[in-house]
Amino acid sequence: MRIEILNTGTELLLGTTLNTHGKWFGEQLFKLGMRIQRLTTVPDGDAITEALRECVGRADAVIVTGGLGPTSDDLTREATAAVVGAELIEDEAALRSLEAFFAARNKVMADSNRKQAQVLVGADVLPNPNGTAPGIYVPPRLNKAANCAVFLLPGPPRELYPMFRDEVAPRLVALAGLSKPPGMLELRLTGIGESDLQQEIDAKLAAIPGLEVGYCARIGEVDLRLIGDDAAVAAGREIAVSMFAKQIFSEDGSSLEATVVRLMAARGLKLATAESCTGGLIANRVTDVPGSSEVFTHGFVTYANEAKRDLLGVPQAMLDEHGAVSEPVVRAMAEGALKASGADVAVAVTGIAGPGGGTADKPVGTVWLAWAAKGRETLSLRQIHPRNRKDFKLAVSQAALDGVRRLVG
Amino acid sequence: MRIEILNTGTELLLGTTLNTHGKWFGEQLFKLGMRIQRLTTVPDGDAITEALRECVGRADAVIVTGGLGPTSDDLTREATAAVVGAELIEDEAALRSLEAFFAARNKVMADSNRKQAQVLVGADVLPNPNGTAPGIYVPPRLNKAANCAVFLLPGPPRELYPMFRDEVAPRLVALAGLSKPPGMLELRLTGIGESDLQQEIDAKLAAIPGLEVGYCARIGEVDLRLIGDDAAVAAGREIAVSMFAKQIFSEDGSSLEATVVRLMAARGLKLATAESCTGGLIANRVTDVPGSSEVFTHGFVTYANEAKRDLLGVPQAMLDEHGAVSEPVVRAMAEGALKASGADVAVAVTGIAGPGGGTADKPVGTVWLAWAAKGRETLSLRQIHPRNRKDFKLAVSQAALDGVRRLVG
Repeated sequence: MRIEILNTGTELLLGTTLNTHGKWFGEQLFKLGMRIQRLTTVPDGDAITEALRECVGRADAVIVTGGLGPTSDDLTREATAAVVGAELIEDEAALRSLEAFFAARNKVMADSNRKQAQVLVGADVLPNPNGTAPGIYVPPRLNKAANCAVFLLPGPPRELYPMFRDEVAPRLVALAGLSKPPGMLELRLTGIGESDLQQEIDAKLAAIPGLEVGYCARIGEVDLRLIGDDAAVAAGREIAVSMFAKQIFSEDGSSLEATVVRLMAARGLKLATAESCTGGLIANRVTDVPGSSEVFTHGFVTYANEAKRDLLGVPQAMLDEHGAVSEPVVRAMAEGALKASGADVAVAVTGIAGPGGGTADKPVGTVWLAWAAKGRETLSLRQIHPRNRKDFKLAVSQAALDGVRRLVG
Repeated sequence: MRIEILNTGTELLLGTTLNTHGKWFGEQLFKLGMRIQRLTTVPDGDAITEALRECVGRADAVIVTGGLGPTSDDLTREATAAVVGAELIEDEAALRSLEAFFAARNKVMADSNRKQAQVLVGADVLPNPNGTAPGIYVPPRLNKAANCAVFLLPGPPRELYPMFRDEVAPRLVALAGLSKPPGMLELRLTGIGESDLQQEIDAKLAAIPGLEVGYCARIGEVDLRLIGDDAAVAAGREIAVSMFAKQIFSEDGSSLEATVVRLMAARGLKLATAESCTGGLIANRVTDVPGSSEVFTHGFVTYANEAKRDLLGVPQAMLDEHGAVSEPVVRAMAEGALKASGADVAVAVTGIAGPGGGTADKPVGTVWLAWAAKGRETLSLRQIHPRNRKDFKLAVSQAALDGVRRLVG
């Protein structure tokens, strides 16, 4: 079924309001086995008519949000009447419901609200227990322009969400003749780039009948999305896991930091961090995870050399001889953090975030990472991430957390 | 000028990714005195062609985001060539730039990336220093379908934002026939809410002829945007500064952390942080600022009570008697951080980020903040921010940094 969403509201295009309807409708429709074919956002006013006419010409069902209020620029009802060729009349039940809404709040209904009781002749009125504007459902048989269903819904989420659940979803299911929703699996990978992943796996996944494949790249991460019936998704997963078992850190949408916290909590392990160039980002990501206090105890942000020396016990002579961005120093930082915190695992990073501070030997983007753990040899690694400052920090934090994951996983 | 935005990306319609482009473009165009006429979101693939053809038929300029990657579903280049009637060729300079991007990261370029060097014959190639896909600008004279400019831009914000600022905004200003963008001043305020600000100042600003006013609320911050000719903007600024001198922390778009670093660097002062509930976010924000190593030396992320005790010298008896979220403890944390770091100013926070850990006395969202400085009495403050975990951390970091700003400003 071809479904389009039409969001109306000047505030959505002025930069003042973030439009979250696309994500929300995408989630809801996905659960019904449906997709959004197109989402259009237009300002309040006349633009609605033109946009709705186009949507109705392309889709089997159009969901319109907003423009059902009492003010002069709330024109969704009028636009819909014009497009589908129906008349507006005042609905007695809707008017009584409006009056009851105000009475229950000890308020007098303004005259302007009366237009919210107007509905298209023959359409279903969708009750709105959480606001004044009822929704309207125009079934395809009423639509003189095209064989397309139209839903008019209020914009505010507290009114929209329950109305979708109670009134819209059942009607969409009936329109479609419900089939089982497709399966979907999102694998999150780190330690491999989007194009390398695709080059290695795409042909193999393409050979699975009925499997749809999507890639989404973030810094230090690629998401691989498998969509299809259960057998196709399972076959795709088997290929991905057999090729990239080490890189896959999540099959349920969890972030890398949540994966680290989950793995360490399950093993009763404690984590400490010693950060120079990431400046607290690793600790910040870990503590974004609810329950991280079970795992994370001490974070050292040793930005100055004196901090590396005084808090982590990095010898001044080592700093003088090798510089702060060096393998001996990062190893001493990790081992010093392990000792000072009493944690089971400590990760340390020291690098040059830029824009200043680079040299020919150690260009901006250079970073040393180390992982120290009780009873294990300390690991260390050099990487180069020539990115802007914030992206450098993010890429380094990703590599640092991934090293912890591999150590404790 | 009629401007349309076309966002491409299956992930934007599947409920997995929140589309923030509409809000961001709305803000950017508002600063140029322009508006979005319509925003359309379509999945990757063939739908782009149909949607682009419609946009080009309605608008003077179309900005397309996404679909410039190396994978098989990245079809924006091909769709645009079909719509405007131009051919694609491999651009030598773009190819060299791509190869240099990979070489700088010690990586071999995958074959699939080569298609990212394809551009429309005669179009401008827009450099992308932050990613692989260059942008493309098709001026109206190249467009055989309609008198409409087309911009193709990468989807990821870290690539899109600088490219818009450096390459797109100046071309839009020229297309609109403006010699320069309208005057604009963005005042950033903290310590006052959006509705309070608007209630106090809106009528006074409305009395200035030719001044357009915008408000934008973020967590712990309101931006006040003044747009108009130079005299109108100056008159608006004078009113705002006379009323809210203490709350305004930036007149040039600088973040609160950048303001803190600038003020402290100018005075030769050093900063240390002692964070419990913010988990490193304050240090992370400060170290996002280039040059922050001049100011920031030591960060303590004392998540566990043992860390507060061992690193900051908070007495165990105090922790036992008052609990970690208390005035004595936060003051001891700030004073301990000042002493352990040798810095001039130390800020400390301890609170309950949730979702667990709240009590009747100290509900989730409770936080104590303290500021210690050499030769001054330590200040402390209790706040409640009943928000989700990440927003709580952000609100607390904002209050912590604002306290530092007021102390050193």
